[in-house]
Amino acid sequence: MNLSSRILSMQSSPIRRLVPYAQKAKKNGKKVYHLNIGQPDIKTPKSFLQSIRDFDQEVLEYSTSQGSEELRNAMINYYKNYNIDFELDDIFVTNGGSEALLFALIAVCDPGEEVLIPEPFYTNYSGFSDAINVTVKPITTSGDNGFRLPSKEDIEKTISTKTKAILISNPGNPTGAVYTKDEVMMLASLAKEYNLFIIADEVYREFVYDGLEYISFGNIKEIEDRVIIVDSVSKRYSACGARIGSIASKNKDLMRNILKLCQGRLCVPTLEQIGATKLYETDKSYFEEVNLEYKNRRDTLYSKLIKIEGVSCQKPTGAFYIIAKLPVDDAEVFVKWMLEEFDLDGETVMMAPAEGFYKTKGLGRDEARLAYILNEKDLIRSVEILEAGLKAYNNR
Amino acid sequence: MNLSSRILSMQSSPIRRLVPYAQKAKKNGKKVYHLNIGQPDIKTPKSFLQSIRDFDQEVLEYSTSQGSEELRNAMINYYKNYNIDFELDDIFVTNGGSEALLFALIAVCDPGEEVLIPEPFYTNYSGFSDAINVTVKPITTSGDNGFRLPSKEDIEKTISTKTKAILISNPGNPTGAVYTKDEVMMLASLAKEYNLFIIADEVYREFVYDGLEYISFGNIKEIEDRVIIVDSVSKRYSACGARIGSIASKNKDLMRNILKLCQGRLCVPTLEQIGATKLYETDKSYFEEVNLEYKNRRDTLYSKLIKIEGVSCQKPTGAFYIIAKLPVDDAEVFVKWMLEEFDLDGETVMMAPAEGFYKTKGLGRDEARLAYILNEKDLIRSVEILEAGLKAYNNR
Repeated sequence: MNLSSRILSMQSSPIRRLVPYAQKAKKNGKKVYHLNIGQPDIKTPKSFLQSIRDFDQEVLEYSTSQGSEELRNAMINYYKNYNIDFELDDIFVTNGGSEALLFALIAVCDPGEEVLIPEPFYTNYSGFSDAINVTVKPITTSGDNGFRLPSKEDIEKTISTKTKAILISNPGNPTGAVYTKDEVMMLASLAKEYNLFIIADEVYREFVYDGLEYISFGNIKEIEDRVIIVDSVSKRYSACGARIGSIASKNKDLMRNILKLCQGRLCVPTLEQIGATKLYETDKSYFEEVNLEYKNRRDTLYSKLIKIEGVSCQKPTGAFYIIAKLPVDDAEVFVKWMLEEFDLDGETVMMAPAEGFYKTKGLGRDEARLAYILNEKDLIRSVEILEAGLKAYNNR
Repeated sequence: MNLSSRILSMQSSPIRRLVPYAQKAKKNGKKVYHLNIGQPDIKTPKSFLQSIRDFDQEVLEYSTSQGSEELRNAMINYYKNYNIDFELDDIFVTNGGSEALLFALIAVCDPGEEVLIPEPFYTNYSGFSDAINVTVKPITTSGDNGFRLPSKEDIEKTISTKTKAILISNPGNPTGAVYTKDEVMMLASLAKEYNLFIIADEVYREFVYDGLEYISFGNIKEIEDRVIIVDSVSKRYSACGARIGSIASKNKDLMRNILKLCQGRLCVPTLEQIGATKLYETDKSYFEEVNLEYKNRRDTLYSKLIKIEGVSCQKPTGAFYIIAKLPVDDAEVFVKWMLEEFDLDGETVMMAPAEGFYKTKGLGRDEARLAYILNEKDLIRSVEILEAGLKAYNNR
């Protein structure tokens, strides 16, 4: 009565497996600043809850497998702001971006086939891939140059006859990198030349700073039948608990087939779709406000971080993460130590060790991901604690 | 740029693929009685919406990957009523019973491995299996004897070295069969002898009529580490749109591994879990009332159905479905005809052709599944229309 090899091969989430240490620290009376997860403190627009409160049908019925037309139309309007032109049958609502990702991988890859993913990457990319026997081939990038993509020639070396797709998050989690037009077009031309899909995880689309130009893979007409857009309300509207995502593509054959997966799980929650429809109708000014808040947080965290002796990182331009190199051998050991052994006046900090974001063994061992999802006062205090912790750790 | 073989091999839902014909009939002004889907008209307990309306946190945050402790504790109490003894770590909340099923299959089977499933079965069993390369081996049962399981010896013949689990719904969808203690114990002994898991879909646990004894696979101590219980609030509390299900097992190693899948998709919607907690706290008297309502509907539908010339079926004892043999060659053609060509005073009936519930080619072609999820008046009218339709169809 053995479990499957595929589930045994899955890694525990490197972010979530340290949670018990944080829980123990809190039980012992420590305050823990959580920079380890992407749970923003920004208020969810009130329209979400309000519209759900107004629901008064006596039977909570199934929605359609594709997702409600109201929500899909609201998404279509949202995409129009980015010059992405979807029709109703091009978009299905999913259980978070996670399900969209899973459906895309199932639809594109058979067991043993490969997806290229720039590393470091969102760890669940490899988790889902393992679960359904898809092989991840990393495209290695480095914090030293702000996680820029390697040259086309270097990426070509990782492509084999089994390669079916490039999976990329833009802006990047955990890197905070925003890919340039040249980088995006280079991947597009690779997709065309090698007959690949592009699975574009663009859930951080609004989180781009410094007036940078943002190019969505949905903007490239020449490869529109190759592009699968994964999206979510979680970060966009600070509604992580809603679990509303979407999968969208102009490839009709692909979407007809993905519909079978949607039908298999019947539908996405009815109420959450009502709320999410209102979220997508939120005025654009909301994003400006939120964007400014995150930009300020990034500036604060970055400027404080680089002043710590031995810490190095580049200033990220998107999402809400910084990957920092720390003056330690093993960031996971250090993060545990911070939770178990250290406090500054009863307070400590939790980060996400970055090794789990890399597929290539040995990379990222001295790196951690910090999410700037706390207010500036808390961020400043967190860096103070981190600095004191590093000093104490290296003077043990 | 080919799609995967696994997604191409998935069948469209035989229930949902006829929906366009129903939509067209309605557009043309026909009233359609829907006996084709398991969407009950019973009111969802008010506590569900009320508790969600009371939610007033400003940020809609992620829940834990396992599901909220409140909901899992409410589930634990619920299971106690059935003498099933789960602890907190034995239960995870899932996106409907569907996700529980998917997770169970991934955890138990590698690509090419097999699950035994009594046919006719809920079609999504094979849909999910195809999507993740699990092979379904049917255990054929027949309406002629009320879908009783074959002998142990006959089932043994379908077991190979690749067989990892038996997947069974009890009470059965689409059969309405409730398995006897002898049948349940026979499967339990097979699981032990051949080292198999049992994935028990018991979402219709409360829908058992005629005072029949119901045995859950959770009641068999000797195989408790082999049993995975799939559950859902959809039918139990008429809350299909909530998409709250669960996966439960006393096999700690299995659950530790399934947690990785739960973490991969982060969590189940926060609000729906609040509502579902209240559902699981619903007084038992609710089930008595609902059970009586369904029993009366079954009696009505069954007694009217068997009076139609050429129609045969056995009286089901559970769930809310009847599989009926119809005096037609191909039930799918007939169902389409009913929607496209027939009406009785502007009204027609939609059923689910049963062929798609069988894996063995050719079985179920003259059968349809009727869900008794409408009130008695509508059920009586539906049978009148069906009778007139059959007569007209066979006199064309």
